[in-house]
Amino acid sequence: MFAEILTIGDEILTGHTVDSNSAFIASRLTERGYWVRRITTVGDDVEEIKTAVREILARKPEVLVISGGLGPTHDDVTMLAVAEALNRKLILCEGCLEKLKAFYERLHREGYIDDPNLNEGRKKMAYLPEGAEPLENTEGAAPGAFIEHEGVKVFVLPGMPREMRAMLENEVLPRLGRRKFVQRKFLAEITDESKLAPILQEALERFNVRIHSSPKGFGKYIGLIIFAEREKEVERTAAFLRERGIGLEEA
Amino acid sequence: MFAEILTIGDEILTGHTVDSNSAFIASRLTERGYWVRRITTVGDDVEEIKTAVREILARKPEVLVISGGLGPTHDDVTMLAVAEALNRKLILCEGCLEKLKAFYERLHREGYIDDPNLNEGRKKMAYLPEGAEPLENTEGAAPGAFIEHEGVKVFVLPGMPREMRAMLENEVLPRLGRRKFVQRKFLAEITDESKLAPILQEALERFNVRIHSSPKGFGKYIGLIIFAEREKEVERTAAFLRERGIGLEEA
Repeated sequence: MFAEILTIGDEILTGHTVDSNSAFIASRLTERGYWVRRITTVGDDVEEIKTAVREILARKPEVLVISGGLGPTHDDVTMLAVAEALNRKLILCEGCLEKLKAFYERLHREGYIDDPNLNEGRKKMAYLPEGAEPLENTEGAAPGAFIEHEGVKVFVLPGMPREMRAMLENEVLPRLGRRKFVQRKFLAEITDESKLAPILQEALERFNVRIHSSPKGFGKYIGLIIFAEREKEVERTAAFLRERGIGLEEA
Repeated sequence: MFAEILTIGDEILTGHTVDSNSAFIASRLTERGYWVRRITTVGDDVEEIKTAVREILARKPEVLVISGGLGPTHDDVTMLAVAEALNRKLILCEGCLEKLKAFYERLHREGYIDDPNLNEGRKKMAYLPEGAEPLENTEGAAPGAFIEHEGVKVFVLPGMPREMRAMLENEVLPRLGRRKFVQRKFLAEITDESKLAPILQEALERFNVRIHSSPKGFGKYIGLIIFAEREKEVERTAAFLRERGIGLEEA
Protein backbone atom coordinates (compact mmCIF):
# COMPACT_ATOMS: atom_id res chain seq x y z
CA MET A 1 0.00 0.00 0.00
CA PHE A 2 1.71 3.16 -1.09
CA ALA A 3 0.73 6.78 -0.98
CA GLU A 4 1.92 10.12 -2.27
CA ILE A 5 1.52 13.66 -0.99
CA LEU A 6 1.33 16.82 -3.11
CA THR A 7 1.52 20.18 -1.39
CA ILE A 8 0.81 23.35 -3.27
CA GLY A 9 1.95 26.87 -2.59
CA ASP A 10 4.38 29.54 -3.83
CA GLU A 11 5.10 30.34 -0.17
CA ILE A 12 6.72 26.90 0.20
CA LEU A 13 8.77 27.21 -3.00
CA THR A 14 10.13 30.60 -1.94
CA GLY A 15 11.05 29.29 1.49
CA HIS A 16 8.65 31.59 3.34
CA THR A 17 6.72 28.65 4.74
CA VAL A 18 8.17 25.39 6.01
CA ASP A 19 5.94 22.62 4.70
CA SER A 20 4.83 21.09 8.00
CA ASN A 21 1.58 19.91 6.41
CA SER A 22 3.27 17.15 4.48
CA ALA A 23 4.98 15.87 7.65
CA PHE A 24 1.63 15.75 9.44
CA ILE A 25 -0.08 13.96 6.56
CA ALA A 26 2.88 11.59 6.20
CA SER A 27 2.83 10.60 9.85
CA ARG A 28 -0.90 9.88 9.79
CA LEU A 29 -0.65 7.85 6.58
CA THR A 30 2.34 5.93 7.95
CA GLU A 31 0.38 5.03 11.08
CA ARG A 32 -2.33 3.62 8.86
CA GLY A 33 0.14 1.33 7.17
CA TYR A 34 0.73 3.38 4.03
CA TRP A 35 4.25 3.75 2.75
CA VAL A 36 4.59 7.35 1.61
CA ARG A 37 6.91 7.02 -1.35
CA ARG A 38 7.19 10.59 -2.44
CA ILE A 39 6.27 14.13 -1.43
CA THR A 40 6.05 16.77 -4.14
CA THR A 41 5.58 20.52 -3.83
CA VAL A 42 4.61 22.78 -6.72
CA GLY A 43 3.44 26.39 -6.95
CA ASP A 44 0.01 27.96 -7.36
CA ASP A 45 -0.04 27.38 -11.08
CA VAL A 46 -2.59 25.34 -13.03
CA GLU A 47 -0.08 23.78 -15.43
CA GLU A 48 2.42 22.86 -12.71
CA ILE A 49 -0.26 21.26 -10.53
CA LYS A 50 -1.83 19.42 -13.46
CA THR A 51 1.51 18.00 -14.54
CA ALA A 52 2.39 16.89 -11.02
CA VAL A 53 -1.01 15.23 -10.47
CA ARG A 54 -0.76 13.34 -13.74
CA GLU A 55 2.76 12.13 -12.97
CA ILE A 56 1.66 10.91 -9.56
CA LEU A 57 -1.42 9.11 -10.94
CA ALA A 58 0.80 7.37 -13.49
CA ARG A 59 2.75 5.85 -10.59
CA LYS A 60 -0.53 4.32 -9.34
CA PRO A 61 -0.44 5.01 -5.60
CA GLU A 62 -3.44 3.80 -3.64
CA VAL A 63 -3.81 7.20 -2.03
CA LEU A 64 -2.90 10.71 -3.10
CA VAL A 65 -3.37 13.52 -0.59
CA ILE A 66 -3.20 17.04 -2.04
CA SER A 67 -3.07 20.09 0.21
CA GLY A 68 -3.22 23.82 -0.52
CA GLY A 69 -4.70 26.34 -2.91
CA LEU A 70 -8.43 26.02 -2.15
CA GLY A 71 -9.09 29.57 -0.93
CA PRO A 72 -10.88 32.54 -2.54
CA THR A 73 -7.86 34.48 -3.84
CA HIS A 74 -6.63 34.71 -7.43
CA ASP A 75 -3.81 32.21 -6.89
CA ASP A 76 -6.00 29.46 -5.43
CA VAL A 77 -6.31 27.24 -8.47
CA THR A 78 -5.95 23.72 -7.11
CA MET A 79 -9.50 22.42 -7.73
CA LEU A 80 -9.42 23.66 -11.31
CA ALA A 81 -6.01 22.04 -11.90
CA VAL A 82 -7.09 18.74 -10.32
CA ALA A 83 -10.25 18.68 -12.43
CA GLU A 84 -8.19 19.25 -15.57
CA ALA A 85 -5.64 16.61 -14.58
CA LEU A 86 -8.44 14.06 -14.17
CA ASN A 87 -10.20 15.21 -17.35
CA ARG A 88 -13.28 16.13 -15.36
CA LYS A 89 -15.40 19.23 -15.48
CA LEU A 90 -15.47 21.60 -12.54
CA ILE A 91 -19.09 21.70 -11.44
CA LEU A 92 -21.08 23.58 -8.84
CA CYS A 93 -21.70 21.68 -5.62
CA GLU A 94 -25.04 23.10 -4.42
CA GLY A 95 -24.62 21.82 -0.89
CA CYS A 96 -21.18 23.47 -0.70
CA LEU A 97 -22.65 26.75 -1.90
CA GLU A 98 -25.25 26.67 0.89
CA LYS A 99 -22.57 26.02 3.48
CA LEU A 100 -20.39 28.82 2.14
CA LYS A 101 -23.34 31.19 2.28
CA ALA A 102 -24.02 30.25 5.91
CA PHE A 103 -20.31 30.49 6.72
CA TYR A 104 -19.90 34.06 5.42
CA GLU A 105 -23.19 35.14 6.99
CA ARG A 106 -21.89 33.93 10.33
CA LEU A 107 -18.56 35.75 9.86
CA HIS A 108 -20.50 38.90 9.01
CA ARG A 109 -22.78 38.59 12.06
CA GLU A 110 -19.71 38.13 14.22
CA GLY A 111 -18.14 41.25 12.79
CA TYR A 112 -15.18 39.67 10.96
CA ILE A 113 -16.17 40.83 7.48
CA ASP A 114 -18.04 43.77 5.99
CA ASP A 115 -19.82 41.98 3.20
CA PRO A 116 -21.62 38.65 3.72
CA ASN A 117 -22.40 38.09 0.04
CA LEU A 118 -20.89 35.36 -2.09
CA ASN A 119 -18.75 37.26 -4.57
CA GLU A 120 -16.85 35.47 -7.35
CA GLY A 121 -13.85 34.52 -5.22
CA ARG A 122 -15.98 32.98 -2.50
CA LYS A 123 -18.33 31.26 -4.91
CA LYS A 124 -15.36 29.66 -6.67
CA MET A 125 -14.84 27.46 -3.62
CA ALA A 126 -18.17 25.68 -4.27
CA TYR A 127 -16.89 24.20 -7.55
CA LEU A 128 -15.51 20.65 -7.36
CA PRO A 129 -14.37 18.17 -10.01
CA GLU A 130 -17.31 16.22 -11.43
CA GLY A 131 -18.05 13.10 -9.38
CA ALA A 132 -16.18 14.38 -6.31
CA GLU A 133 -17.57 13.90 -2.85
CA PRO A 134 -17.26 17.15 -0.85
CA LEU A 135 -15.24 16.93 2.38
CA GLU A 136 -16.45 19.07 5.23
CA ASN A 137 -14.26 21.90 6.45
CA THR A 138 -15.12 22.37 10.12
CA GLU A 139 -12.49 25.09 10.56
CA GLY A 140 -12.86 27.27 7.49
CA ALA A 141 -14.65 28.07 4.26
CA ALA A 142 -13.34 25.89 1.45
CA PRO A 143 -14.67 22.33 1.22
CA GLY A 144 -12.25 19.58 0.27
CA ALA A 145 -12.88 16.85 -2.29
CA PHE A 146 -12.63 13.08 -2.44
CA ILE A 147 -12.40 11.48 -5.87
CA GLU A 148 -11.88 7.82 -6.71
CA HIS A 149 -10.03 7.97 -9.98
CA GLU A 150 -8.84 4.85 -11.80
CA GLY A 151 -8.11 3.03 -8.56
CA VAL A 152 -6.47 5.98 -6.81
CA LYS A 153 -8.15 7.61 -3.82
CA VAL A 154 -7.53 11.32 -4.37
CA PHE A 155 -8.13 13.71 -1.47
CA VAL A 156 -7.92 17.47 -1.95
CA LEU A 157 -7.50 19.40 1.31
CA PRO A 158 -6.98 23.07 2.23
CA GLY A 159 -3.50 24.36 3.00
CA MET A 160 -4.20 26.16 6.27
CA PRO A 161 -2.83 23.70 8.83
CA ARG A 162 -5.79 23.91 11.21
CA GLU A 163 -8.28 23.24 8.39
CA MET A 164 -6.15 20.57 6.77
CA ARG A 165 -5.61 18.67 10.02
CA ALA A 166 -9.27 18.60 10.97
CA MET A 167 -10.28 17.45 7.49
CA LEU A 168 -7.59 14.78 7.43
CA GLU A 169 -8.69 13.36 10.79
CA ASN A 170 -12.45 13.60 10.24
CA GLU A 171 -12.86 13.04 6.54
CA VAL A 172 -9.78 11.32 5.10
CA LEU A 173 -8.59 8.77 7.66
CA PRO A 174 -12.03 7.19 8.18
CA ARG A 175 -12.04 6.47 4.43
CA LEU A 176 -8.72 4.61 4.64
CA GLY A 177 -9.72 1.69 6.86
CA ARG A 178 -8.48 0.69 10.25
CA ARG A 179 -5.23 -1.16 9.79
CA LYS A 180 -2.48 0.39 11.87
CA PHE A 181 1.22 0.15 11.37
CA VAL A 182 3.39 0.17 14.44
CA GLN A 183 6.47 2.36 14.61
CA ARG A 184 8.74 2.78 17.59
CA LYS A 185 11.73 5.06 18.01
CA PHE A 186 14.88 3.98 19.81
CA LEU A 187 18.28 5.41 20.55
CA ALA A 188 21.12 2.96 19.95
CA GLU A 189 24.23 3.61 21.97
CA ILE A 190 27.22 2.84 19.83
CA THR A 191 30.58 4.42 19.24
CA ASP A 192 31.19 3.02 15.78
CA GLU A 193 28.21 3.36 13.49
CA SER A 194 29.63 0.99 10.90
CA LYS A 195 29.45 -1.92 13.34
CA LEU A 196 25.70 -1.41 13.38
CA ALA A 197 25.19 -1.91 9.63
CA PRO A 198 25.71 -5.71 9.43
CA ILE A 199 23.58 -6.27 12.54
CA LEU A 200 20.74 -4.19 11.12
CA GLN A 201 21.06 -6.08 7.88
CA GLU A 202 20.67 -9.37 9.72
CA ALA A 203 17.63 -8.04 11.59
CA LEU A 204 16.01 -7.03 8.29
CA GLU A 205 16.51 -10.55 6.96
CA ARG A 206 15.14 -12.24 10.09
CA PHE A 207 12.13 -10.11 10.87
CA ASN A 208 9.30 -8.57 8.91
CA VAL A 209 10.27 -4.99 9.72
CA ARG A 210 11.72 -1.86 8.18
CA ILE A 211 14.43 -0.04 10.06
CA HIS A 212 15.44 3.54 9.60
CA SER A 213 18.64 4.75 11.22
CA SER A 214 19.92 8.30 11.50
CA PRO A 215 23.02 9.56 13.26
CA LYS A 216 22.45 12.04 16.08
CA GLY A 217 25.68 13.99 15.93
CA PHE A 218 28.94 12.11 16.32
CA GLY A 219 29.51 9.02 18.37
CA LYS A 220 27.38 7.78 21.25
CA TYR A 221 23.86 7.66 19.74
CA ILE A 222 22.12 6.66 16.55
CA GLY A 223 18.35 7.04 16.19
CA LEU A 224 16.49 3.94 15.03
CA ILE A 225 12.88 3.72 13.94
CA ILE A 226 11.48 0.21 13.61
CA PHE A 227 8.28 -0.27 11.58
CA ALA A 228 6.19 -3.43 11.56
CA GLU A 229 2.63 -4.56 11.18
CA ARG A 230 2.57 -5.84 14.74
CA GLU A 231 4.03 -4.67 18.03
CA LYS A 232 5.43 -8.15 18.65
CA GLU A 233 7.62 -7.96 15.57
CA VAL A 234 9.12 -4.69 16.82
CA GLU A 235 9.76 -6.27 20.25
CA ARG A 236 11.45 -9.31 18.73
CA THR A 237 13.65 -7.10 16.57
CA ALA A 238 14.64 -4.91 19.51
CA ALA A 239 15.42 -8.01 21.59
CA PHE A 240 17.60 -9.35 18.77
CA LEU A 241 19.54 -6.08 18.50
CA ARG A 242 20.16 -6.08 22.25
CA GLU A 243 21.35 -9.69 22.08
CA ARG A 244 23.87 -8.60 19.48
CA GLY A 245 25.26 -6.08 21.93
CA ILE A 246 23.51 -2.88 20.86
CA GLY A 247 22.41 -0.75 23.80
CA LEU A 248 18.86 0.27 22.91
CA GLU A 249 16.75 2.80 24.75
CA GLU A 250 13.20 3.73 23.82
CA ALA A 251 13.36 7.30 22.49
CA MET B 1 16.32 30.81 -14.35
CA PHE B 2 14.64 27.93 -12.61
CA ALA B 3 15.77 25.51 -9.97
CA GLU B 4 14.60 22.35 -8.29
CA ILE B 5 15.25 20.85 -4.88
CA LEU B 6 15.37 17.15 -4.02
CA THR B 7 15.47 16.14 -0.37
CA ILE B 8 16.14 12.57 0.60
CA GLY B 9 15.20 10.70 3.74
CA ASP B 10 12.79 8.09 5.06
CA GLU B 11 12.44 10.23 8.19
CA ILE B 12 10.72 12.92 6.07
CA LEU B 13 8.40 10.46 4.33
CA THR B 14 7.28 8.97 7.64
CA GLY B 15 6.63 12.40 9.11
CA HIS B 16 9.28 12.08 11.80
CA THR B 17 11.19 15.04 10.43
CA VAL B 18 9.76 18.25 9.04
CA ASP B 19 11.73 19.10 5.92
CA SER B 20 13.06 22.50 6.93
CA ASN B 21 16.11 22.02 4.69
CA SER B 22 14.14 22.56 1.52
CA ALA B 23 12.69 25.83 2.89
CA PHE B 24 16.18 27.06 3.70
CA ILE B 25 17.54 26.11 0.30
CA ALA B 26 14.47 27.59 -1.41
CA SER B 27 14.82 30.92 0.33
CA ARG B 28 18.50 31.22 -0.57
CA LEU B 29 17.88 30.26 -4.21
CA THR B 30 14.96 32.69 -4.41
CA GLU B 31 17.16 35.51 -3.11
CA ARG B 32 19.60 34.73 -5.90
CA GLY B 33 16.88 35.13 -8.49
CA TYR B 34 16.10 31.48 -9.07
CA TRP B 35 12.49 30.44 -9.33
CA VAL B 36 12.19 27.16 -7.45
CA ARG B 37 9.60 25.32 -9.49
CA ARG B 38 9.36 22.10 -7.59
CA ILE B 39 10.50 20.40 -4.40
CA THR B 40 10.58 16.61 -4.32
CA THR B 41 11.23 14.27 -1.41
CA VAL B 42 12.01 10.58 -1.80
CA GLY B 43 13.29 7.92 0.58
CA ASP B 44 16.74 6.41 1.14
CA ASP B 45 16.43 4.08 -1.81
CA VAL B 46 18.71 3.95 -4.85
CA GLU B 47 15.92 3.35 -7.37
CA GLU B 48 13.64 6.08 -5.99
CA ILE B 49 16.44 8.65 -5.93
CA LYS B 50 17.66 7.68 -9.39
CA THR B 51 14.18 7.99 -10.86
CA ALA B 52 13.58 11.36 -9.22
CA VAL B 53 16.95 12.76 -10.36
CA ARG B 54 16.33 11.66 -13.94
CA GLU B 55 12.85 13.18 -13.97
CA ILE B 56 14.21 16.47 -12.67
CA LEU B 57 17.08 16.56 -15.20
CA ALA B 58 14.56 15.97 -17.98
CA ARG B 59 12.83 19.21 -16.96
CA LYS B 60 16.15 21.03 -17.52
CA PRO B 61 16.44 23.31 -14.50
CA GLU B 62 19.55 25.44 -14.32
CA VAL B 63 20.20 24.28 -10.80
CA LEU B 64 19.34 21.14 -8.86
CA VAL B 65 20.15 21.04 -5.15
CA ILE B 66 19.98 17.59 -3.55
CA SER B 67 20.19 17.18 0.22
CA GLY B 68 20.40 14.11 2.44
CA GLY B 69 21.78 10.59 2.52
CA LEU B 70 25.54 11.22 2.46
CA GLY B 71 26.44 9.66 5.82
CA PRO B 72 28.20 6.41 6.73
CA THR B 73 25.15 4.25 7.54
CA HIS B 74 23.61 1.52 5.40
CA ASP B 75 20.76 3.71 4.21
CA ASP B 76 22.96 6.57 3.00
CA VAL B 77 22.90 5.84 -0.72
CA THR B 78 22.53 9.25 -2.34
CA MET B 79 25.96 9.54 -4.02
CA LEU B 80 25.58 6.08 -5.53
CA ALA B 81 22.09 6.89 -6.80
CA VAL B 82 23.16 10.24 -8.25
CA ALA B 83 26.12 8.62 -10.00
CA GLU B 84 23.80 6.01 -11.52
CA ALA B 85 21.24 8.64 -12.54
CA LEU B 86 23.97 10.55 -14.39
CA ASN B 87 25.49 7.38 -15.87
CA ARG B 88 28.75 8.09 -14.13
CA LYS B 89 30.98 5.80 -12.13
CA LEU B 90 31.42 6.34 -8.42
CA ILE B 91 35.13 6.95 -7.93
CA LEU B 92 37.42 7.48 -4.97
CA CYS B 93 38.26 11.11 -4.24
CA GLU B 94 41.74 10.89 -2.70
CA GLY B 95 41.59 14.36 -1.20
CA CYS B 96 38.26 13.52 0.43
CA LEU B 97 39.73 10.34 1.88
CA GLU B 98 42.58 12.33 3.46
CA LYS B 99 40.12 14.77 4.98
CA LEU B 100 37.92 11.98 6.33
CA LYS B 101 40.98 10.35 7.88
CA ALA B 102 41.94 13.62 9.59
CA PHE B 103 38.33 14.19 10.65
CA TYR B 104 37.97 10.83 12.40
CA GLU B 105 41.40 11.11 13.95
CA ARG B 106 40.38 14.41 15.45
CA LEU B 107 37.09 12.96 16.78
CA HIS B 108 39.09 10.13 18.30
CA ARG B 109 41.60 12.47 19.92
CA GLU B 110 38.74 14.50 21.35
CA GLY B 111 37.17 11.34 22.80
CA TYR B 112 34.01 11.22 20.66
CA ILE B 113 34.72 7.86 19.06
CA ASP B 114 36.60 4.69 20.06
CA ASP B 115 38.03 3.81 16.69
CA PRO B 116 39.70 6.40 14.44
CA ASN B 117 40.12 4.06 11.47
CA LEU B 118 38.32 4.43 8.18
CA ASN B 119 36.04 1.40 8.09
CA GLU B 120 33.85 0.66 5.07
CA GLY B 121 31.01 2.98 6.09
CA ARG B 122 33.31 5.94 6.62
CA LYS B 123 35.35 5.23 3.52
CA LYS B 124 32.17 5.15 1.44
CA MET B 125 31.85 8.90 1.93
CA ALA B 126 35.02 9.51 -0.11
CA TYR B 127 33.40 8.19 -3.29
CA LEU B 128 31.90 10.78 -5.61
CA PRO B 129 30.42 10.58 -9.13
CA GLU B 130 33.14 10.73 -11.78
CA GLY B 131 33.94 14.32 -12.73
CA ALA B 132 32.42 15.79 -9.57
CA GLU B 133 34.10 18.58 -7.70
CA PRO B 134 34.11 17.85 -3.95
CA LEU B 135 32.38 20.43 -1.74
CA GLU B 136 33.93 21.01 1.64
CA ASN B 137 31.95 20.07 4.73
CA THR B 138 33.17 22.40 7.47
CA GLU B 139 30.69 20.98 10.00
CA GLY B 140 30.89 17.22 9.49
CA ALA B 141 32.40 14.26 7.72
CA ALA B 142 30.75 13.74 4.35
CA PRO B 143 31.91 15.95 1.47
CA GLY B 144 29.29 17.21 -0.96
CA ALA B 145 29.58 17.17 -4.73
CA PHE B 146 29.17 19.63 -7.58
CA ILE B 147 28.58 18.21 -11.03
CA GLU B 148 27.85 20.11 -14.24
CA HIS B 149 25.70 17.69 -16.17
CA GLU B 150 24.21 18.53 -19.57
CA GLY B 151 23.71 22.17 -18.64
CA VAL B 152 22.36 21.51 -15.15
CA LYS B 153 24.39 22.52 -12.11
CA VAL B 154 23.85 19.61 -9.70
CA PHE B 155 24.81 20.10 -6.05
CA VAL B 156 24.72 17.19 -3.61
CA LEU B 157 24.67 18.25 0.05
CA PRO B 158 24.39 16.47 3.40
CA GLY B 159 21.04 16.29 5.19
CA MET B 160 22.10 17.42 8.65
CA PRO B 161 20.88 21.03 8.69
CA ARG B 162 24.05 22.51 10.19
CA GLU B 163 26.24 20.81 7.57
CA MET B 164 23.87 21.53 4.71
CA ARG B 165 23.56 25.22 5.58
CA ALA B 166 27.28 25.82 5.84
CA MET B 167 27.92 24.01 2.56
CA LEU B 168 25.14 25.90 0.81
CA GLU B 169 26.48 29.27 1.95
CA ASN B 170 30.18 28.55 1.40
CA GLU B 171 30.24 26.20 -1.55
CA VAL B 172 26.98 26.45 -3.50
CA LEU B 173 25.93 30.12 -3.52
CA PRO B 174 29.34 31.43 -4.62
CA ARG B 175 28.97 29.17 -7.69
CA LEU B 176 25.61 30.73 -8.61
CA GLY B 177 26.70 34.28 -9.37
CA ARG B 178 25.77 37.51 -7.71
CA ARG B 179 22.40 38.55 -9.04
CA LYS B 180 19.91 39.09 -6.23
CA PHE B 181 16.18 39.02 -6.40
CA VAL B 182 14.31 41.32 -4.11
CA GLN B 183 11.34 40.09 -2.13
CA ARG B 184 9.37 42.07 0.39
CA LYS B 185 6.52 40.96 2.60
CA PHE B 186 3.50 43.13 3.32
CA LEU B 187 0.25 42.86 5.19
CA ALA B 188 -2.72 44.20 3.25
CA GLU B 189 -5.61 45.35 5.38
CA ILE B 190 -8.80 44.43 3.65
CA THR B 191 -12.14 43.05 4.72
CA ASP B 192 -13.12 41.53 1.41
CA GLU B 193 -10.36 39.53 -0.18
CA SER B 194 -12.09 39.29 -3.54
CA LYS B 195 -11.81 43.05 -4.05
CA LEU B 196 -8.06 42.57 -3.98
CA ALA B 197 -7.93 40.17 -6.94
CA PRO B 198 -8.58 42.64 -9.81
CA ILE B 199 -6.20 45.19 -8.29
CA LEU B 200 -3.42 42.60 -8.00
CA GLN B 201 -4.11 41.54 -11.55
CA GLU B 202 -3.68 45.10 -12.74
CA ALA B 203 -0.43 45.44 -10.77
CA LEU B 204 0.92 42.27 -12.41
CA GLU B 205 0.19 43.72 -15.84
CA ARG B 206 1.77 47.10 -15.07
CA PHE B 207 4.92 46.07 -13.27
CA ASN B 208 7.60 43.46 -13.72
CA VAL B 209 6.84 41.67 -10.46
CA ARG B 210 5.39 38.49 -9.08
CA ILE B 211 2.92 38.73 -6.24
CA HIS B 212 2.01 35.99 -3.84
CA SER B 213 -0.99 36.51 -1.57
CA SER B 214 -2.09 34.33 1.30
CA PRO B 215 -4.99 34.87 3.68
CA LYS B 216 -4.08 35.21 7.35
CA GLY B 217 -7.25 33.91 8.99
CA PHE B 218 -10.52 35.64 8.18
CA GLY B 219 -10.98 39.25 7.37
CA LYS B 220 -8.64 42.11 8.22
CA TYR B 221 -5.29 40.94 6.79
CA ILE B 222 -3.89 39.24 3.74
CA GLY B 223 -0.18 38.55 3.42
CA LEU B 224 1.46 39.74 0.20
CA ILE B 225 4.94 38.96 -1.02
CA ILE B 226 6.18 41.04 -3.93
CA PHE B 227 9.15 39.74 -5.94
CA ALA B 228 11.13 41.77 -8.45
CA GLU B 229 14.58 42.12 -9.86
CA ARG B 230 14.95 45.58 -8.40
CA GLU B 231 13.85 47.27 -5.19
CA LYS B 232 12.37 50.15 -7.19
CA GLU B 233 9.92 47.86 -8.94
CA VAL B 234 8.66 46.61 -5.56
CA GLU B 235 8.29 50.21 -4.35
CA ARG B 236 6.35 51.25 -7.43
CA THR B 237 4.03 48.26 -7.09
CA ALA B 238 3.40 48.96 -3.40
CA ALA B 239 2.70 52.63 -4.19
CA PHE B 240 0.23 51.59 -6.88
CA LEU B 241 -1.60 49.23 -4.50
CA ARG B 242 -1.87 52.00 -1.90
CA GLU B 243 -3.21 54.39 -4.55
CA ARG B 244 -5.92 51.87 -5.29
CA GLY B 245 -6.98 51.98 -1.64
CA ILE B 246 -5.23 48.96 -0.20
CA GLY B 247 -3.80 49.58 3.25
CA LEU B 248 -0.29 48.10 3.07
CA GLU B 249 2.06 47.61 5.97
CA GLU B 250 5.54 46.16 5.73
CA ALA B 251 5.39 42.74 7.45
